Amino acid sequence: MTHQLYWTEDPAPLLRVEPGFRLAEASANAHPGFAGGKAEGVAALAAGATRLADLQERLFANSRMGDQRRVLLVLQAMDTAGKGGIVKHVVGSVDPQGVQLAAFKKPTEEELAHDFLWRIHRQTPGAGMIGVFDRSHYEDVLIARVHGFAPPEEIERRYGAINDFEAELAEAGTSIVKVMLHLSRDEQRVRLLERLDRADKHWKFNPGDIDERGHWGAYTDAYQVAFDRTSTPIAPWHVVPADRKWYARLAVQHLLVAALERLHLEWPAADFDVAEQRERLLASE
Amino acid sequence: MTHQLYWTEDPAPLLRVEPGFRLAEASANAHPGFAGGKAEGVAALAAGATRLADLQERLFANSRMGDQRRVLLVLQAMDTAGKGGIVKHVVGSVDPQGVQLAAFKKPTEEELAHDFLWRIHRQTPGAGMIGVFDRSHYEDVLIARVHGFAPPEEIERRYGAINDFEAELAEAGTSIVKVMLHLSRDEQRVRLLERLDRADKHWKFNPGDIDERGHWGAYTDAYQVAFDRTSTPIAPWHVVPADRKWYARLAVQHLLVAALERLHLEWPAADFDVAEQRERLLASE
Repeated sequence: MTHQLYWTEDPAPLLRVEPGFRLAEASANAHPGFAGGKAEGVAALAAGATRLADLQERLFANSRMGDQRRVLLVLQAMDTAGKGGIVKHVVGSVDPQGVQLAAFKKPTEEELAHDFLWRIHRQTPGAGMIGVFDRSHYEDVLIARVHGFAPPEEIERRYGAINDFEAELAEAGTSIVKVMLHLSRDEQRVRLLERLDRADKHWKFNPGDIDERGHWGAYTDAYQVAFDRTSTPIAPWHVVPADRKWYARLAVQHLLVAALERLHLEWPAADFDVAEQRERLLASE
Repeated sequence: MTHQLYWTEDPAPLLRVEPGFRLAEASANAHPGFAGGKAEGVAALAAGATRLADLQERLFANSRMGDQRRVLLVLQAMDTAGKGGIVKHVVGSVDPQGVQLAAFKKPTEEELAHDFLWRIHRQTPGAGMIGVFDRSHYEDVLIARVHGFAPPEEIERRYGAINDFEAELAEAGTSIVKVMLHLSRDEQRVRLLERLDRADKHWKFNPGDIDERGHWGAYTDAYQVAFDRTSTPIAPWHVVPADRKWYARLAVQHLLVAALERLHLEWPAADFDVAEQRERLLASE
């Protein structure tokens, strides 16, 4: 993509998980590739929104002519890291008709009666759509690992199953963008406190969030294993520093724009005779 | 709702279909209740977006505490009248996580194997959501009537079935906002021509649109009957002049805001002890 004013470097390779990456040592407060501060970040996000909306419309338009390509954004993070803000401020800037949003909560009894990818597969985006997973199949190797919801050999099996599944999606025309919003433990305390201190935020707070916070180290380990096992060339992970909301949003927008730009989307050609239809229209009452 | 600067009158009662309303005599070019022009309309839409987003968040927040209420916007119109623009510019201004969008196309074989409300019912919004129907169960008394897709006695039966269905939804906590975007035949020609004259709009054009245009009078009749039979006190129709896109968007936004304001949405009270959770959080690592 054209690097705008304050982008000093393409952030995608800087954020991508490569062999040797250590989550425990990664900064949650950095802003890789972006030289500006919050004000510049907010302005860059607004500018990028126009570009993202244009690319989304082209993707959608092409699907009407049989193009099977689609994009899937996978969002994972600890509580309060800002998944909701990404959906609202990044995804929310494109036409809702081109977005397929799926939030995966605690599995229902029906979902548990199937293999872990059953509920995931049915929510994958259709041709021309941008799909967004707010949590995903990775919960089945994260919370499931931390709390022992499945036996170790089943968790082991899942990493391979996930790689096969994602390879299959990619083969069917899906560009997969996997993002972990990386929040620091201190910043989480600040954000949880804000939810407790503001009456208009109480509904977002859940006492269970503090219990989960107690497993911070175990989650860091579980993410590390997930990265080691599932950051593939076809579907690499990106770890996006999320202590600064403006940067996380900007970075995810950038990753989406880059994924769409790699598709080289032109407006599709008409599959009818334009002059003939023009005449028919003008002849109509 | 607080009447903003250029609203001279609450448009809801002006747009509402009351006994004696005649679609064939209604203006598609008027802007009932709004004294400004396009520039003022666009500014008012931006101001209203903030209000709508706030109300949507309150609706969503309350559903987390068990509130069953939700809103359903039903959009019907002739081709090019601007349903897509309403979704993009009005609905698109609220958090996508609070929106459930359903576009009803030509029914599939599976859908046709059920009664006409089967596919509709399963797309009704959940608690706390704003549901949007881009086309709806009304297609089954509009296109179905115009083209004779069902026998007359079945069409007759459907008006009553629709009223029962909507009454049931309302009883379960759904505020129903039914909108017909009223476009003139001349303006449709202009918009179809634009789709033919711009390469980036070709994908939106379908030669079948000109065929449907040929049934304009029959559609007007079918809408009239639908209004006569299904504009009920619990779910009245609104006919929104749509030759000016800015007015149609503003009017639909107003109807949504008014529906939400009637719910008197406060932020829900915490269902946990705030001081106790605050202490737990501060004691955590």
